[in-house]
This record gives sequence, C-alpha cells and structure tokens, in this order.
Amino acid sequence: MRDFSSDHRWLSLNTATVRKQGDLVQIIEACARHGIRAIDPWRDQVATVGLDRAVRAVRDAGLELSGYCRGGMFTSDAARRGEVRDDNRRCVDEASALGAPCVVLVAGGLPQFSRPGSAASKDIAAARAQVEEAIAEMLEYATQARMPLAIEPLHPAYAADRACVNTTKHALDICDRLDPARTGALGVALDVYHIWWDPEVMGEIARAGRDRRLFAFHVCDWLVPTRDILNDRGMMGDGVIDIKRYRATVEATGYAGYSEIEIFSHEWWDRPMDEVIRTCIERHRTVV
Amino acid sequence: MRDFSSDHRWLSLNTATVRKQGDLVQIIEACARHGIRAIDPWRDQVATVGLDRAVRAVRDAGLELSGYCRGGMFTSDAARRGEVRDDNRRCVDEASALGAPCVVLVAGGLPQFSRPGSAASKDIAAARAQVEEAIAEMLEYATQARMPLAIEPLHPAYAADRACVNTTKHALDICDRLDPARTGALGVALDVYHIWWDPEVMGEIARAGRDRRLFAFHVCDWLVPTRDILNDRGMMGDGVIDIKRYRATVEATGYAGYSEIEIFSHEWWDRPMDEVIRTCIERHRTVV
Repeated sequence: MRDFSSDHRWLSLNTATVRKQGDLVQIIEACARHGIRAIDPWRDQVATVGLDRAVRAVRDAGLELSGYCRGGMFTSDAARRGEVRDDNRRCVDEASALGAPCVVLVAGGLPQFSRPGSAASKDIAAARAQVEEAIAEMLEYATQARMPLAIEPLHPAYAADRACVNTTKHALDICDRLDPARTGALGVALDVYHIWWDPEVMGEIARAGRDRRLFAFHVCDWLVPTRDILNDRGMMGDGVIDIKRYRATVEATGYAGYSEIEIFSHEWWDRPMDEVIRTCIERHRTVV
Repeated sequence: MRDFSSDHRWLSLNTATVRKQGDLVQIIEACARHGIRAIDPWRDQVATVGLDRAVRAVRDAGLELSGYCRGGMFTSDAARRGEVRDDNRRCVDEASALGAPCVVLVAGGLPQFSRPGSAASKDIAAARAQVEEAIAEMLEYATQARMPLAIEPLHPAYAADRACVNTTKHALDICDRLDPARTGALGVALDVYHIWWDPEVMGEIARAGRDRRLFAFHVCDWLVPTRDILNDRGMMGDGVIDIKRYRATVEATGYAGYSEIEIFSHEWWDRPMDEVIRTCIERHRTVV
C-alpha cells in the first residue's frame, strides 16, 4: 500500500465536499492554495460557473480530474426516456471537455425519485432492468467519445431514491453483461461509505481489479449515529470504517489512482472551506 | 398466496409497534379487543410487567406468539462474553415460558455499540466471526430447550450499531455452517424493511423455504425520505415496498405462518393504541 503519510499527492477533492462554501472557481483556487492536484467536480457546480470557465479554471490551475459527477438517474417513465438519454450524452460531452478520466454513474432509484414527475412505481426489479438498458445505450455514445463509465454502487439505504445498484457484485455483474470483453469502457467507482458493510466486498474488489474495472476510489466515514441518511457523512477517522483496510485491498489489485474525498455533511458544509480542506489533508495522511 | 382481505387471522402484532402507548398487559388487552390472535413481545416489555404476569396474560387472552424479541447482541469484548452468553440463555428460558415458536436473533454490530462499555473496534469481519461463534454456543443451549433460533438479517444501515448480519444470504450461510443437517433448530426471520433492497433476496427466500429455515415474516414499509434511520419505519402502504410481492414469494415456499407487523416509528408511537391497531388491521387486509 502506498504511504500517504508524508504528502497528499494522491488526494483528490470531490467538490461536493465544500459545495456550500464557494463556487467551483473558488474551490479550484482553494485547491491551488493547499497543493491539491485533483478534483472531481459535480455537473451542477460546473453549470453554475459555465463549462468554458470551468475548463479554463481547471487547466489554469494545472488540476487533474479523478472523475466527473455524475451521470445516471436512468430510471424514468416512458415519456422521459429521451430526456434521460440526452442529459447523459451531455454529461459525457462535459466530461470530455474537462478532461475527466471517467463519468461516475449513479443509477437512480424508483422513477418517481430519479426523475421527478415520472409515474410512481414500487418495482425495483423493473428499475434495475431499466438501468441496465440505459447504461448499455449510454455506453455506445461514451465509447465513441472514449469516455469510460464508472458505475457507483450506493449504500442500500439509497435503493429507493438515488440508486438501485447497491452492491459491488451487482455493479460488476452489469459490467460483465454489457462489456464482456473488458475493454476498459465500463467499470466501477467504489466509495467506502457505500460498500464497507458488505460481507462480500473484499472478494468483489479483487474481482474489479482483476478485470480492470476499478476506475475510482472514494473515502469518507460512517458515523454512529447517522443523523441524516444523505448529508451526515463523516470526515475520515470520525466514524467506524477501517479505511486503510479497504485502501489496502483496493491497492493490492494494482490500483494506483487518487483517493478521492467525498463528504456530504451539513456539519462540514458549515465550516470555512480552508478548515475543511486542511482537515481533509491531515486525515488523508493519517487515517486513509 | 393466502387471501388476507376478509379477516386478520394471520396478523401478529410485534409489541414494539405500540411500546410507547402502554405496557405489555395493556397491549395484550388491546389485541383481545381487536381480535388479534398473536403477538411477538420484546424482552424489556416482559421484564417491565414480570415474566409470570406476562405468561398469564398471554395464556388468559388465548394468544399465540409468532416469536420472541430478541436474543443476540453477541459482539462484545472478552470481559463481557460470559454476560452475553448468560443473557441469551435467559432469553431462551423466557421464550420457553411464554410458549414462543422461536427466539429472534439480532446479531449486534461492532462491540462498543452491541454491548456498551466494550472496547471500540472497527473490525466488522471480526464481529461477524464472533457472532457466528456465539450463535453456535447459544444453539447448543437452545437445542436442549427445544427452542428454535431465527437469525434476522438487518438492513446494512445498521451494520455498525445493531447487526453485522445484513443479508439473507449471510444469515443462511451461517445456518448452513452451524446446522448443516437442517434440523429445524436454526433459521431466519425475514422483515421486508431489511431485505427489500437486496437484488438476490428472492432466490434466497426460496432457499430459506427449501431448507425449512423460514421461521418468521415481518412487515412494515420504507419511507422516502426516511428521517430517522431507526425510528421512522412506515405503516404498510405508506412507503415504497411492494409488500405483496415479498409475501407471495415467502408463501410460495410453503410458509403459512403469521405476517407480523413491526413498526418502530415516532409518528405511530404518538398516536392512540387503538388507532394504530385499527390501521394495522386495515393495511394488513389491503396492502400486505
């Protein structure tokens, strides 16, 4: 496992971590101040400053990207299929403009939550089938654009409203069906928050590495108690996840990319940007 | 699938559902008023009125039990092992006195949450190993007492603090290792709240049925949003779970026992006991 204790060369900041403290340009300036070399920006943050300005800011700061968040939300009723497809194609185009190594895909849950206004459904099996179909369609477009897609399995607590792909195994099974040749066009993004509880995850991480499907690795922590199921994620070290153990397993597969910090937290959003980033760097060097 | 629309013969009330509205004797009286024929009481509720009085109240009301909640919380540090073992043996004895068909086991999460005061750990694999060892030990005692044990897999959101057995497959794998002869001494209790998200659950339900391991079936609903991860469970029909689909799958295996209603909800705890029970009966007949 790489030694992170003496620098933060392999820290990437998912820009949602400080989304309330400033716009994307201000976040990029803060990264420059703190010697952070990579980010994973969100589409809405890019849209707020404009794609051209975002592209320039990333380039001027000499930043790399560790991903682009996020494509997906594939589940909808029939009337919204075209809208979903076009939305995801634009996401690929933006990722290309920004020089992202992959688009992170959050599958979407039941259609009424994934694409509001869609007819309500309780059929999670149908949602899963629709997700797979839509990824297959998006993959054609993304492959032509040479933009890899990384399916992110989300914690089962989000199965209804954010993502019905909830285990690493499920995500990799989809990859195997849609990209049996393991071309590098389709893989997974693994976040310890979403996968730490899974009794089968260590074997599935090894499988992802073996098949060259491990495109991104995200960290934060699981707090006890978790007071808000979406926005009470913990700073690394403040919760119960043995993060080093997961990173060791990920790196044992040959993964040598960024360790991306993504924290959705009302508590951390309320603190100054520089304090949050300083804390991220310190925890990256000590507990990640 | 059995027709529940014209009566509530197969409704069992888990007494946690109305735990704030009255003691166990008052709950039993309410069940008698509403023609409910079975309950699943909690140990602390029994302790509050006293075991002898609880036994008499159950007998006088002519109630059956659909389970006894709960044994488990197996994870602890070394100093507390004896305490955990004795506690679970007492649970078996109480279940026998009450005439329960099984003890429901909630495994426990990390030791510091399962048995407060235990040394803190982030090693969920070690917790799982300890759970399996402790179930093996409890099984010897329970087998002599002819009291079946039903492992309840809990939603992965509880992996840290309540149960590190989080999938039906994991629970059944433990059963296979500890009771390979499928004697009827060890099985599972399945609650739609905990398992509905699992992409493999339908196959695992079939496996549980085939192996005669399906000892109990619980229902409530998953609300969106879930405002409190422990105590914001929904009344059946108010959430996103297609409950009938799970019951159909469970009954297709031959299960013909109670459909037990277990709702932890600040909202429902704030309403009068008779209103809650009337609503349970109505939903049992329409959406379960």
